[in-house]
Amino acid sequence: MTMLDTTHDASLQSWVPSANAADTDFPVQNLPFGRFSPKDGAQTMRIGVAIGDQILDLRAAGLADSDDMHTLMSAEASERQALRSKISQGLRLGSAQQATWANALIPMAQATLELPCEIRDYTDFYTGIHHATAVGTLFRPDNPLLPNYKWVPIAYHGRSSSIGVSGQKFFRPSAQTRNPQEDAPVLRPTQRLDYELELGVMIGIGNVSGDAIPIARAQQHAFGLVLLNDWSARDVQAWEYQPLGPFLAKNFASTISPWIVTMEALAPFHAPWTRPAGDPQPLAYLDDASHRAHGAFDITLEVFLQTEKMRETGLAHERLSSSNYRDAYWSVAQMIAHHTVNGCNLRAGDLLGTGTQSAPEPENAGSLLERTAGGRNPVTLKNGEQRIFLQDGDSVTMRAHCEREGFRRIGFGECEGTVLPARS
Amino acid sequence: MTMLDTTHDASLQSWVPSANAADTDFPVQNLPFGRFSPKDGAQTMRIGVAIGDQILDLRAAGLADSDDMHTLMSAEASERQALRSKISQGLRLGSAQQATWANALIPMAQATLELPCEIRDYTDFYTGIHHATAVGTLFRPDNPLLPNYKWVPIAYHGRSSSIGVSGQKFFRPSAQTRNPQEDAPVLRPTQRLDYELELGVMIGIGNVSGDAIPIARAQQHAFGLVLLNDWSARDVQAWEYQPLGPFLAKNFASTISPWIVTMEALAPFHAPWTRPAGDPQPLAYLDDASHRAHGAFDITLEVFLQTEKMRETGLAHERLSSSNYRDAYWSVAQMIAHHTVNGCNLRAGDLLGTGTQSAPEPENAGSLLERTAGGRNPVTLKNGEQRIFLQDGDSVTMRAHCEREGFRRIGFGECEGTVLPARS
Repeated sequence: MTMLDTTHDASLQSWVPSANAADTDFPVQNLPFGRFSPKDGAQTMRIGVAIGDQILDLRAAGLADSDDMHTLMSAEASERQALRSKISQGLRLGSAQQATWANALIPMAQATLELPCEIRDYTDFYTGIHHATAVGTLFRPDNPLLPNYKWVPIAYHGRSSSIGVSGQKFFRPSAQTRNPQEDAPVLRPTQRLDYELELGVMIGIGNVSGDAIPIARAQQHAFGLVLLNDWSARDVQAWEYQPLGPFLAKNFASTISPWIVTMEALAPFHAPWTRPAGDPQPLAYLDDASHRAHGAFDITLEVFLQTEKMRETGLAHERLSSSNYRDAYWSVAQMIAHHTVNGCNLRAGDLLGTGTQSAPEPENAGSLLERTAGGRNPVTLKNGEQRIFLQDGDSVTMRAHCEREGFRRIGFGECEGTVLPARS
Repeated sequence: MTMLDTTHDASLQSWVPSANAADTDFPVQNLPFGRFSPKDGAQTMRIGVAIGDQILDLRAAGLADSDDMHTLMSAEASERQALRSKISQGLRLGSAQQATWANALIPMAQATLELPCEIRDYTDFYTGIHHATAVGTLFRPDNPLLPNYKWVPIAYHGRSSSIGVSGQKFFRPSAQTRNPQEDAPVLRPTQRLDYELELGVMIGIGNVSGDAIPIARAQQHAFGLVLLNDWSARDVQAWEYQPLGPFLAKNFASTISPWIVTMEALAPFHAPWTRPAGDPQPLAYLDDASHRAHGAFDITLEVFLQTEKMRETGLAHERLSSSNYRDAYWSVAQMIAHHTVNGCNLRAGDLLGTGTQSAPEPENAGSLLERTAGGRNPVTLKNGEQRIFLQDGDSVTMRAHCEREGFRRIGFGECEGTVLPARS
């Protein structure tokens, strides 16, 4: 567990006024990293830190030698903490750096936020047991939770090329689907387009091929977390997923938030990691005392929807559900320890999705498939519109934040994406 | 289909003597691309073309501006053909370039062959129907070939970080496995380590997200083919693969050959693409007349094994099986058209595995799982040793070549890998 230090003091204020607003996701206690391109187009992609509604350009502030995010991410923990300390001190009220760093600030509104780093391998886990059970019931009514679920942090490899940053727009995908009454599959636009509410772990320090990362050190290899929307075409998935797992059902688009909230920023929000009574205890490579004490994270996750009609009538996004990452069956450290136990090498810039994080109750499910019980119970929005699955023009926004008595609230910013009509 | 031109003339000879040897994989008709580092260590990684037992350094020969293989691979077809023509002419007997290009040659024995390009996304298909049927019988005796197989070119996303080049050595992986008589899984070294004989398609020209690649143009997006050994831990796979597919069973190591044999070099070896009588015809996005006429490739594939004992007693690799890529159920063009039909974007450097290519008869299966019928019928080697699955110290080599009356034989070089004992 990362130690708490003065960068976490709730009393800290910044000389950037917007960072002191009660509702900002980016107070001086957060300091998430990302990449941006100034909208004036004169400069190439830069790396920066979000502070209120501003971005501190790290190279302009003399805090980085290059704009290579992988290098920054793969620094040793002590270096990362030193950098965080330096940034925190420089952005605090009364800092001697204010005069010079003020020139290294760019308003977020004048920048295009990019993917926070080049994504290398993308792995998607399945750590939400409420999701796994609910989806399992729909795909395999007799056999919802398979015998391996409580032993193995189940995962599959995903597609990196189609991962976009918040603001991503994608065409409704077409692929083969086969309805129960049909003799043969048909190529057509998906009729069961869904979102999946996930967090993504951005790997910082990698490991050499053959070297398993022990659970005790696993979290040091995580650089931070982002929000992840793992868009899914359920009808495509149902037809294609046997025997090798989802493919075209998931690889047309995945959206992440632009700011990586670091493990250091999340340090106050650790929670005990527990197993429900009666469930098997994990194998030793997935378990230790420190992990039990601190292995989970208390992060509130929310999904919002804005239909085209809502947009046209000036209605803001409406919240569909809220869940908490504390409820995940497998933790960040367990995902990393499991992924590498066979010697598989992780690299800076790898992304590990947590899988859909649903709350135990169906109305707080992290996907429409679960929320509507496979399409049987439509969601009715405040303006009277109904949804079973996503319609063209729908915009889905995910948000996350951490709150704890005695600490400043920090947030993840937004992960938004919009469905465009299928191409003819 | 790529047109034949003078670069394919069987009568061409090279001023590099070893390229004219009857048994070379790299005559002047082949000209595969790869990357290498001179063993003297003075230079960084370069790109080159294999010719006999030599490498032509493309930048030293004035044929490339940089050592960025992705740029070379993503050139338009006409540019690629022009480059091939220029290299072919310069390496022919009597070429005016001989005097200058002789200085751009480096003996292969003095170079370390690297991955032919940085691998971006890796997708592994399942196009070998004999393999799918044989493996399906072992995993699901009642239901070997699932209903989607003859409609969907089944695939899953694989792991890029652990792909190595021929010569790769890896530790026997440990992971959770659960034997039938056990109450709980155990973390232990795999007892059912296998190889899988595949070809890999290296993508050259990518596509923009949202743009499906039509079957008629699909093959233009392939830059060339390599050999691929998709090492697999069968006991790990059996325990973990439901419901999202293989993960730790495959991501510890995959090995490819160092030279990309281009689609231009393979042009003489196209074959008609056919469906067995009674099988469904593919959907329109996977089918057209030209594809039926030329969509397959006649490529002989072979697997060889050398045990530690054979190595100690001076015995060469022994051939275990031979199959032909002509027998694949889905073609290169169909893999590309299917992968992108939902708008998924491919990029230069993506690798698409064909899945295991087994011949119809069990003794020519492309994996030990099939070859031994799940471990029931051990393979007996000439020195009396037996194998059910791979043992520590085993070296597996794959080779491939194309032969056709009236054309020069071309080969793929070697794809070799060695199993090291599990780490304690």
